[in-house]
Amino acid sequence: MGTGSSGSAARARAGTAPRVEVLRVGHRPGRDPRLSTHVALVARAFGAERMYLNPPDEQVVASLSGVRERWGGGFEVVPAPSWTAVVRGARGPVVHLTMYGQPLARLLPRLRRAREILLVVGGAKVPPRLYGDATYNVSVGSQPHSEVAAVAVVLAELLGVPGARGFPGARQRIVPRARGKAVVPVGGSAA
Amino acid sequence: MGTGSSGSAARARAGTAPRVEVLRVGHRPGRDPRLSTHVALVARAFGAERMYLNPPDEQVVASLSGVRERWGGGFEVVPAPSWTAVVRGARGPVVHLTMYGQPLARLLPRLRRAREILLVVGGAKVPPRLYGDATYNVSVGSQPHSEVAAVAVVLAELLGVPGARGFPGARQRIVPRARGKAVVPVGGSAA
Repeated sequence: MGTGSSGSAARARAGTAPRVEVLRVGHRPGRDPRLSTHVALVARAFGAERMYLNPPDEQVVASLSGVRERWGGGFEVVPAPSWTAVVRGARGPVVHLTMYGQPLARLLPRLRRAREILLVVGGAKVPPRLYGDATYNVSVGSQPHSEVAAVAVVLAELLGVPGARGFPGARQRIVPRARGKAVVPVGGSAA
Repeated sequence: MGTGSSGSAARARAGTAPRVEVLRVGHRPGRDPRLSTHVALVARAFGAERMYLNPPDEQVVASLSGVRERWGGGFEVVPAPSWTAVVRGARGPVVHLTMYGQPLARLLPRLRRAREILLVVGGAKVPPRLYGDATYNVSVGSQPHSEVAAVAVVLAELLGVPGARGFPGARQRIVPRARGKAVVPVGGSAA
């Protein structure tokens, strides 16, 4: 990575990077399970602690439980019947990712100093009061794109682009290869 | 951004950053239109030139045409009946993004020196020969996550995280705001 991302990774290793939780609001069960699952998988792979899902959807919870069993780590999807309760309970800045917000570059120094961050992403419909309830409304490019990408880029800037490291408790891990696939079992749950 | 991303953005402005095209393979019309649309929107917003879609899907082409009309730029989705033809036609390294590949950090210096890059992402099913046909198989974290996120992070590392800049020919643009939404019309097609 460039210096920026390496710096983020170093801070993450040193324990001085923020702890990040993600809140996905406006999920539509039946329509959005794959996109919300992608948001959750990205949150996990890029180092967030958990993802609150509003409204709850058992299908997304189950997908991520399966991933945790095979690939380890403590990440889980937490059903959130009330998104306002999650926002009120946040112990640090609430960062709403929206194409209408202030450029990420402007807010990053402040976000990097936070100890805990709640990243909030909407789906097709975002409750209007979220813009007011958020500490910061932040954009990753003022263009329409994807909540999956926005979460990935913000986590990469805060915690570093993830490398080949596995998660504790994994049953299997990938050995990076120039060609083909290599997945090896991990001996014991403590590996 | 950190120094890394700023460096990428500076290279992009100076015209020394690679030109990037994206190829999405294994698209399943009827099942994947939203995910493939997210890949395309990210490719556009993060500075790629175009996205080849294999197999073709008129629904994704139409979505991105609508975005281009409103938000400008020259990005388009190009129907690709044969993905091997796109790979053979590549004028630079073919970079297949896969969780099984070599860590991005290891390959980035080489990718940054390329003049043209074809980024390839699969969906649920990836043709096995893609691993052999690619110049590099590259992972963004050796964990399951999302092709949408992988494209975003690689483009952010190569071209910089996009800021508030609009695209040429846009009918409207966003004025970044701390609260709420501000979208203003752009006068004339040359703005």
